[in-house]
Amino acid sequence: MWMETSCSLAFETPVATPFLLMLRPRSGAQQWIAREQYVLTPSVPAVEFTDQFGNLCQRLVAPAGRFSIHTSADIEAADFTDTAYGAPFVEVQLLPDATLPFLLPSRYCESDRFSQIASSITAGFTPGYNQCAAIVDYIRGALQYVPGAGQDIISAAEVNQRSQAVCRDMAHLGIALCRALCIPARMVVGYLEALQPMDLHAWFEAYVGGRWYTFDPTQGSPCGGRVAIAYGRDAADVAIYTQFGDPVELVGMTVRVERLNAAPV
Amino acid sequence: MWMETSCSLAFETPVATPFLLMLRPRSGAQQWIAREQYVLTPSVPAVEFTDQFGNLCQRLVAPAGRFSIHTSADIEAADFTDTAYGAPFVEVQLLPDATLPFLLPSRYCESDRFSQIASSITAGFTPGYNQCAAIVDYIRGALQYVPGAGQDIISAAEVNQRSQAVCRDMAHLGIALCRALCIPARMVVGYLEALQPMDLHAWFEAYVGGRWYTFDPTQGSPCGGRVAIAYGRDAADVAIYTQFGDPVELVGMTVRVERLNAAPV
Amino acid sequence: MWMETSCSLAFETPVATPFLLMLRPRSGAQQWIAREQYVLTPSVPAVEFTDQFGNLCQRLVAPAGRFSIHTSADIEAADFTDTAYGAPFVEVQLLPDATLPFLLPSRYCESDRFSQIASSITAGFTPGYNQCAAIVDYIRGALQYVPGAGQDIISAAEVNQRSQAVCRDMAHLGIALCRALCIPARMVVGYLEALQPMDLHAWFEAYVGGRWYTFDPTQGSPCGGRVAIAYGRDAADVAIYTQFGDPVELVGMTVRVERLNAAPV
Amino acid sequence: MWMETSCSLAFETPVATPFLLMLRPRSGAQQWIAREQYVLTPSVPAVEFTDQFGNLCQRLVAPAGRFSIHTSADIEAADFTDTAYGAPFVEVQLLPDATLPFLLPSRYCESDRFSQIASSITAGFTPGYNQCAAIVDYIRGALQYVPGAGQDIISAAEVNQRSQAVCRDMAHLGIALCRALCIPARMVVGYLEALQPMDLHAWFEAYVGGRWYTFDPTQGSPCGGRVAIAYGRDAADVAIYTQFGDPVELVGMTVRVERLNAAPV
Repeated sequence: MWMETSCSLAFETPVATPFLLMLRPRSGAQQWIAREQYVLTPSVPAVEFTDQFGNLCQRLVAPAGRFSIHTSADIEAADFTDTAYGAPFVEVQLLPDATLPFLLPSRYCESDRFSQIASSITAGFTPGYNQCAAIVDYIRGALQYVPGAGQDIISAAEVNQRSQAVCRDMAHLGIALCRALCIPARMVVGYLEALQPMDLHAWFEAYVGGRWYTFDPTQGSPCGGRVAIAYGRDAADVAIYTQFGDPVELVGMTVRVERLNAAPV
Repeated sequence: MWMETSCSLAFETPVATPFLLMLRPRSGAQQWIAREQYVLTPSVPAVEFTDQFGNLCQRLVAPAGRFSIHTSADIEAADFTDTAYGAPFVEVQLLPDATLPFLLPSRYCESDRFSQIASSITAGFTPGYNQCAAIVDYIRGALQYVPGAGQDIISAAEVNQRSQAVCRDMAHLGIALCRALCIPARMVVGYLEALQPMDLHAWFEAYVGGRWYTFDPTQGSPCGGRVAIAYGRDAADVAIYTQFGDPVELVGMTVRVERLNAAPV
Repeated sequence: MWMETSCSLAFETPVATPFLLMLRPRSGAQQWIAREQYVLTPSVPAVEFTDQFGNLCQRLVAPAGRFSIHTSADIEAADFTDTAYGAPFVEVQLLPDATLPFLLPSRYCESDRFSQIASSITAGFTPGYNQCAAIVDYIRGALQYVPGAGQDIISAAEVNQRSQAVCRDMAHLGIALCRALCIPARMVVGYLEALQPMDLHAWFEAYVGGRWYTFDPTQGSPCGGRVAIAYGRDAADVAIYTQFGDPVELVGMTVRVERLNAAPV
Repeated sequence: MWMETSCSLAFETPVATPFLLMLRPRSGAQQWIAREQYVLTPSVPAVEFTDQFGNLCQRLVAPAGRFSIHTSADIEAADFTDTAYGAPFVEVQLLPDATLPFLLPSRYCESDRFSQIASSITAGFTPGYNQCAAIVDYIRGALQYVPGAGQDIISAAEVNQRSQAVCRDMAHLGIALCRALCIPARMVVGYLEALQPMDLHAWFEAYVGGRWYTFDPTQGSPCGGRVAIAYGRDAADVAIYTQFGDPVELVGMTVRVERLNAAPV
């Protein structure tokens, strides 16, 4: 499906403030960027680099005063998320090198503390995709999904003691549980068409059966219309903006996703 | 300055043909991509990756029949190319690791055969930027610049025996001469505002005084309005399209660069 | 100084068990590996790759039964650790891209929770090296250093509520505090000559004044004789061995460092 | 098989001279480095980095006067080189990104000029491994193998006009022919047990059937006992030493490979 995505941010910065941004989705196996726009107001010098996870990152110094960022894109994304019940667990010694960092515990995914619960949740399931699906079912049963971004970012261990969770929390818990089973798992931040209410979204991917598969505990079906903006170990790696120095005020944020009837021309 | 660039290619492909494309300029220290478009007709799946030089590369299979690619972008580029007469030669042992591949001979830049001529051309010049400038002067004196892309790509050794050269040839010769002096040098393919007649352009960069500087033997002045599309060791690395299998016919190619009066909104 | 280092590990593995090892120090700016040995008993196939931090990592499957790893090396290391009081803070926008991951919070360094305490500890100190030195002084004052590796790995937030700490804990706290000040900081695991009692050691590095400097809260002086084995964001990245699947028993571990009188021949 | 390899180089350097060295083989899928030694006489500071092909490279400045490098290693290598007649050609669009640079022409492998001859040599052979084997047969038929390193490095186009060739020449020709068929091919420099007379050796690898396979036109059988020191596009990338500035004299070079009866302890 063709989608038009946009994300606009407005800040009040008391003093000139360095930013690290991830707002430029890349064309990849499951998404093609046909048009893209990235407007800074006022216009300031910005540079871009590719981080260790392959994300395009923008660096700039926001001047004092009002600073806004408007990005938009026309993107073709898959209509449905691939599923692969029965896809097997990949023995650790056979995993590609590049997946190994996604086996280790990270800031918000203390997988080292989830061995027992992960084994218990997935008892009786075929190792691999079916374990991941069982983890998603567990999360959907244990936590009520609450749209929004939450206040502070909490870690999987904290999430697991609550009854409500935002998308990011559910992804963190899913990642921690997968890693506890030696299944590489990574965080994705992006757009999801038809999300209600519209906002940026977070889900996770797990590496089984020789590739990454999408899992989204907030959704009951393998809905497509997804655009990945950034991949990482957890929310610490994929913040769409990281601001350094004294806090600045985010005075506005708008996310829009519209389905297009046809390829843009 | 703000520029709108566009490059359109049309092919007749007798059979489905794999392509490797480099048509997505990246935001970098000297250029910011505010808008970008990349349209494939017919629309086919494409994936993108970052190559070893940091270029964004697109991979796709063009279907049999007419296949066209249209890219365009709004880009802010520097008004003038930086110059730095006197910027010193960097001792080889102090060069950043990432610059070392640009010291070695490559397909079209047989720097191993240019030691003597490079020394002779630059005799009496301060090691570093001034040597590069002397090399540019030599090239401008020895070769008449002929716009266009030439038929076959010829190597620096061949270029040096001619009296006329296209931009790519001049860049190859400049690179080979710089490397022969232990100055890292790399090829750039991109857009140059006000190029007459308009076409894709090629120039080179040399690493002196702790950074890369632009050198363009086709131009008498340090004119800005440059947009780099790809960097590499020579033309073999930076082809805007590489087509595999039986030859296909390029039936149309249009390059446009227009100066914009203001930042696009 | 020339040193001979060795680390031997012995495991009892109930079943064949995949391991990820980091036991091959690399030659780098401050250390040169003149001889190195890496013996697996029994001998099993092993492969090696370079991780995202530049560490050499070995992958293998330990067979069921007794499995031992013996590594040793002759290494030239600096006699003293460089100090640079007054070396300035590097503005975030000027930091090299590669240092940015070391600004973010990580599994054991919740730098996002240390802003206030970091500011308070370093109040009145010149931004940069002197802040890092003040952080080291704070850690040395607040925590009693206890040799050994501790039982579970605890995070900086937990460390900060204790009165005793192992080297790894002190490094985590130092890293979290530096990052809270926008100073990139990374974990180092390695050997330290003259450590009492001898063991593997952990310290941290901070990026100020345009390069990485060594800080070791366990030591009162800038003692050299250090060999870095691995760098990372925190202990999660630099485990000398990570074992996947059911726990195996570490039945023996010996670390030795001996000063050599002369370069080995 | 277990082998002990060694390579010793001695130079007379009129003035302090920067060197780039590749003399540290890495443990990889087909070789395990159990012991390794790298001695510089006199001992000078050296640093190491990983180049774009994954090779470990050492950088140092040789002082004026006699300078020698002695390296040795105990290595386990495969007894036989894998063969895979019938392994299929990988369609270009399915090749891993990392193999793509090995499809392009390079300094000594002008694959762009070998389309016709490559098609002719391999006419009637199944695309893939069998084409590579046919190329090796062609090279063995057309060229007499002469041990040694040759004087100047000549390119595949030049090799193809001769009747005698050193190992490096044969590898260049094989690489150019494979690439002309859209088969990724890369140069390997290393040790070969039982080479007569003993010297450093060069061969090539081609990517077919989903992995790299070894091809050595100098040998009539798939003899193992190989240790790769460096991989690259051609000889320009894999020189075991590159010396910058005024030429220095190589006054001695000794290569030894001995088969060990058992794993070293």
